[in-house]
Amino acid sequence: MKDFNGDDNLIFGRNSVLELLKSGRAINKILFAEGKRDGSAQKIFNDAKSAGIVTEFVGKNVLDKISGGGNHQGVIAYAAAFDYADLEEILNFAESKKEPPFLVLLDELEDPHNFGAILRTADAAGVHGVIIPKRRNVQLNSTVAKTSAGAAEYVKVARVNNIAQTLKELKNSGIMIVGSDMDGEVEFTDADFTGGICIVIGNEGRGMRRLTRENCDLPVKIPMFGKINSLNASVAAALMMYEVCRQRRKNL
Amino acid sequence: MKDFNGDDNLIFGRNSVLELLKSGRAINKILFAEGKRDGSAQKIFNDAKSAGIVTEFVGKNVLDKISGGGNHQGVIAYAAAFDYADLEEILNFAESKKEPPFLVLLDELEDPHNFGAILRTADAAGVHGVIIPKRRNVQLNSTVAKTSAGAAEYVKVARVNNIAQTLKELKNSGIMIVGSDMDGEVEFTDADFTGGICIVIGNEGRGMRRLTRENCDLPVKIPMFGKINSLNASVAAALMMYEVCRQRRKNL
Repeated sequence: MKDFNGDDNLIFGRNSVLELLKSGRAINKILFAEGKRDGSAQKIFNDAKSAGIVTEFVGKNVLDKISGGGNHQGVIAYAAAFDYADLEEILNFAESKKEPPFLVLLDELEDPHNFGAILRTADAAGVHGVIIPKRRNVQLNSTVAKTSAGAAEYVKVARVNNIAQTLKELKNSGIMIVGSDMDGEVEFTDADFTGGICIVIGNEGRGMRRLTRENCDLPVKIPMFGKINSLNASVAAALMMYEVCRQRRKNL
Repeated sequence: MKDFNGDDNLIFGRNSVLELLKSGRAINKILFAEGKRDGSAQKIFNDAKSAGIVTEFVGKNVLDKISGGGNHQGVIAYAAAFDYADLEEILNFAESKKEPPFLVLLDELEDPHNFGAILRTADAAGVHGVIIPKRRNVQLNSTVAKTSAGAAEYVKVARVNNIAQTLKELKNSGIMIVGSDMDGEVEFTDADFTGGICIVIGNEGRGMRRLTRENCDLPVKIPMFGKINSLNASVAAALMMYEVCRQRRKNL
């Protein structure tokens, strides 16, 4: 898949633009394909007009070019830049909900589709925020937003300079650091995930870095019974996140 | 993403070709990019030579064209056609393992990446086989194989003409049909998944068809706590599959 021109603020596809409109994030302009607009495209147009957003009509070939051949479905929005949260804001958010912190940390994740899929599940699972390193990790961009089905507009994402130091700080606040590791001693469904927790997801190919692994309180194993030796990063993340949900709800 | 020329038997990318070689499936030819071959490409070349497979060297632009711009990493294999299993073979396989049948049925799934991701998790979770309809569902192809990280070579996939009838037959054999449904009465972690089970995953946008839903013994709900109202199909499938694993292992 081609990643188009690197513009973080380009949101395309009808569901993504609808979610963008709902989210209240500032939108500079929305482009529509010329010609007849059916159901959801007309709704986007009406919502944009009510919100006083600039709209413009262009040929389908222009949209194809702007989206780098992506599946724009006749609608492309130019949003204001993504807002990152900071870690403190995420921890305050957990506190305001009177819930033990529920965080996900991505350590050198590469694939924007995985990042987007993780944000989508994080929203569903009630994660308070996602932490990524400023370097060597995919950042919030339009592919991430699109794959997230809109969750990129809702889930708080914090960028930090130093993952190892952040993990130490979290540990000092009593948050358990849990990494998924094929050689983990405990199966993820047997560990206690009911307290404050930060789930660490490593790189798609290499897994967690050594320094990150060393900062984990608990390497947990997702059991595998087949011939393939790893799960997709967003699937592993989903299994861990929903295990937190299961245990916390059972504990109510 | 562009789906290249529809050739089901084109496998590209180093991991996928390595898994193809391991799987023992017949390979007609492997193409390599001209020039220096590093680590895994050299291993593929050596393995192919040992297995007596025809190899050929072509320009990178030729590989780009054949793969339709996909990420071929300098290696493309032409495999023999995918083998589909039949349902009886899958049920016999479960019996031979002395396990209650553990099946996944895809009902009009559209996205080859979701199908591939589901096969990858199905392999890991120890699913005996995946059932798809012959029409209006993505079929086994090279995008599916690549996304499955090789699992498409291992997981049995059966094609059936009539989903409703297949579900009735499964029910008559005492297999519980479980569909994921936002309006389900029971949460998936509270249902009993220890017996013979067939997990139904519906279309990415529309969910299960009415007739399929009517044939479910149990619509179960995956609880969601955020603003987005659905999970990715392959994530929902993974959560359900691993819940079967968790319950069955706890029950040992």
